[in-house]
Amino acid sequence: MSLTAVLDRIDAQMPDATARLLEFLRIPSISTDPAYAEACQDAADWLVADLQSIGIAAEKRATPKHPMVVGHAGQDAPDGAPHLLFYGHYDVQPVDPLELWARDPFDPAVEQTPKGEVIRGRGTSDDKGQLMTFVEACRAWREVHGALPCRITFFFEGEEESGSPSLIPFMQENAEELRADIALICDTGLFQSKTSAIVTMLRGMVSEEVTITGPDKDLHSGFFGGIAANPIRVLSKVLAGLHDDTGRVTLPGFYDGIPELSPELRAQWEGLGFDHAQFLGDVGLSQPAGEDGRMPLEMIWSRPTAEVNGIWGGYTGDGFKTVLPSQASAKISFRLVEGQDPDAIRDAFRAHVNAALPVDCSAAFTAHGGSRAGIMDISDPAFEAARAALSEEWPGDAAYVGCGGSIPIAGHFGEILGMTAMLIGFGKDDDAIHSPNEKYDMESFHKGTRSWARILDALSGAKE
Amino acid sequence: MSLTAVLDRIDAQMPDATARLLEFLRIPSISTDPAYAEACQDAADWLVADLQSIGIAAEKRATPKHPMVVGHAGQDAPDGAPHLLFYGHYDVQPVDPLELWARDPFDPAVEQTPKGEVIRGRGTSDDKGQLMTFVEACRAWREVHGALPCRITFFFEGEEESGSPSLIPFMQENAEELRADIALICDTGLFQSKTSAIVTMLRGMVSEEVTITGPDKDLHSGFFGGIAANPIRVLSKVLAGLHDDTGRVTLPGFYDGIPELSPELRAQWEGLGFDHAQFLGDVGLSQPAGEDGRMPLEMIWSRPTAEVNGIWGGYTGDGFKTVLPSQASAKISFRLVEGQDPDAIRDAFRAHVNAALPVDCSAAFTAHGGSRAGIMDISDPAFEAARAALSEEWPGDAAYVGCGGSIPIAGHFGEILGMTAMLIGFGKDDDAIHSPNEKYDMESFHKGTRSWARILDALSGAKE
Repeated sequence: MSLTAVLDRIDAQMPDATARLLEFLRIPSISTDPAYAEACQDAADWLVADLQSIGIAAEKRATPKHPMVVGHAGQDAPDGAPHLLFYGHYDVQPVDPLELWARDPFDPAVEQTPKGEVIRGRGTSDDKGQLMTFVEACRAWREVHGALPCRITFFFEGEEESGSPSLIPFMQENAEELRADIALICDTGLFQSKTSAIVTMLRGMVSEEVTITGPDKDLHSGFFGGIAANPIRVLSKVLAGLHDDTGRVTLPGFYDGIPELSPELRAQWEGLGFDHAQFLGDVGLSQPAGEDGRMPLEMIWSRPTAEVNGIWGGYTGDGFKTVLPSQASAKISFRLVEGQDPDAIRDAFRAHVNAALPVDCSAAFTAHGGSRAGIMDISDPAFEAARAALSEEWPGDAAYVGCGGSIPIAGHFGEILGMTAMLIGFGKDDDAIHSPNEKYDMESFHKGTRSWARILDALSGAKE
Repeated sequence: MSLTAVLDRIDAQMPDATARLLEFLRIPSISTDPAYAEACQDAADWLVADLQSIGIAAEKRATPKHPMVVGHAGQDAPDGAPHLLFYGHYDVQPVDPLELWARDPFDPAVEQTPKGEVIRGRGTSDDKGQLMTFVEACRAWREVHGALPCRITFFFEGEEESGSPSLIPFMQENAEELRADIALICDTGLFQSKTSAIVTMLRGMVSEEVTITGPDKDLHSGFFGGIAANPIRVLSKVLAGLHDDTGRVTLPGFYDGIPELSPELRAQWEGLGFDHAQFLGDVGLSQPAGEDGRMPLEMIWSRPTAEVNGIWGGYTGDGFKTVLPSQASAKISFRLVEGQDPDAIRDAFRAHVNAALPVDCSAAFTAHGGSRAGIMDISDPAFEAARAALSEEWPGDAAYVGCGGSIPIAGHFGEILGMTAMLIGFGKDDDAIHSPNEKYDMESFHKGTRSWARILDALSGAKE
């Protein structure tokens, strides 16, 4: 009864919610470009004012770069109701190449498209539109009930698109204030643009750069070819040796400690109807190229990988130069899953390279980052409650899914604040985040807002 | 007696010869840069005038780019004397980076160095200084004897440093005029800067570029890593598979038809005292990295190679991007020796790549050039005569040597004019040709000139 009224309120206030989102989107809060530092302040101020307008004690908090916004509400909620933290980010990606945009990226508008209404503009999907689904749900709830159903901490950052340099120190310094029972993050998408989903597995990553040096200067392959060690050949051999013929990574111990998928999760994933032919077909491929005998969703969600992300050495311009180069380099990343230790993987890779070096060749390594996989504890009843709530709003059953990429914030909540994070979002595959003509479907905005109302209802009840 | 007078004359006229060379060097005849087209005309004019000054009927001959200089002398030489052709090039390499030069590259001078007197400037060693050793020998001969000892055709081009686009058409169109008994080319060096040498083996070359395409666009390795084919991995495997563990190239038929070194040549090469430890030590290496069981000089002179000269793909800038690239490319060259067919080697390489392609990957090839190895017929008595003459001038016995690189002109004389070429030069390893501060040792200039007088004497006698 009370939820129905909130949902009705959300439906009724969609024009106003859209107008607010458009206002928020007009602020060009590009975090990575110092020219937009003032706009980042403006975006934080806008959020503070908007939160305050619905009775949330919010304030802007300085960092060495762009400010955080922290708000608190519902301290007077009933005993037993959970304390939630909601995270989003108000900063956006740069907009270049500007000439590929069909409209000014910071003059957003609602457009009719053959697939339905969309809001077009930078930040619509990543992450201002998604962030506002939660705020709008809170607004409707409060307008109907006069208060939020549980204690909620709002936590917005403005550096997500530029590496979040202030995030960890801020979380550490304000741990007591930020700690809650569970973190809600709205920065992900629907599964294949249609099935609502909670991301419960994030792959970790080890990224590494290696440079192999042979001769101490570039040589002429006419004079030295055949007698001098060629670092490109050495590097090729190193990289070719990273996988066996079945697609498995050959580093000793690489698969140690990795659990097999539980029968429940396997069944759920099989039920998702993942169309890998279409997924690959969209990028010009036809067959899964991972480990033999693994289903495609495993390959991208729950199995580790070794990929070469870049390689260079010798002459790479037009025409031909018969250089026998002094050096060759590659950037290699390993996507990690549950059970894998980034440091051990990095050590194993370096040992693999060093063992393959012939006489007269040396290797230098640069570590570019390492993080463990993020595995959410779905035994927390909040997960099943949220999944049931999503299943009410969207067609079909909501699913626990993986995410092949890394979302560092989820790990930070676990490591710094001891909180599980629940990643729920409503983006679609064609939202063009980080690209020209970014959009967010009006369906995502509307049903996303309704989803959060349902989840608030379910979680406040779940802890009773 | 007659030779002694010529050698004395050479010694006496060294100051004048040096002055002439300095004048020639002041003309900035950079062939690859259109801004210096007029200077190339000037250099050709200078040569015509210099040849005419010693009684040679010389003229500038237009080509679509820089002119040739052709001269004839000695048509009245005794019956039975051979007809020689001498080839050199008057164009020079560009001079950038100019800031690394200790002096204006076109304001040459004689400098005292700890190793002796040198002429410093662009083109001193490559090839104006070398070219003038022959001209000065002819001048002295004529001044002593009133005529040259045999018929000589002079043939100088101005495009050697920019790919010689006019050379083959000019040789074809003027074949009758240019054909002689043997071609003399002065554009090579002393063996290890001390032993006089005739180059009798030049490796050929096949150069090839390959691009492997997997997905039809760059992908994010978080979303696609583990399921999508990675062209860098495919390319690495292709390249790693080009050699076996003994350093041999694995392409089928690669070694077919290659003769083993003759016992005589092997003995001569063994007698050269090639210091491979120093040769490699100069570039930071310690051990020959070629085929097991081959002596180092074989590796660079008479054995074929496969080298990767360049590789690129994915993200190669600072930091890290987890791109899974659409394409990866490499430039590969094969140095060929006697018995190998460039077309067959190219076909075998392409078949090797295509056989290694997994599903969803394709390869595109660009041929950058192909030439057979050049093997001089040392059974022509001119070779032993020239070798004996060089051995008179320089310490130790002159040697037949190989050259790991390719000197296309030698092949053109054989293919177009049916002439054997004898490559004799006096450059040293530290001449810095193609680099800043190029120099030519005064010893090279002086003893080089004397060497040609001895060779003229020996060859005119050899045919009697």
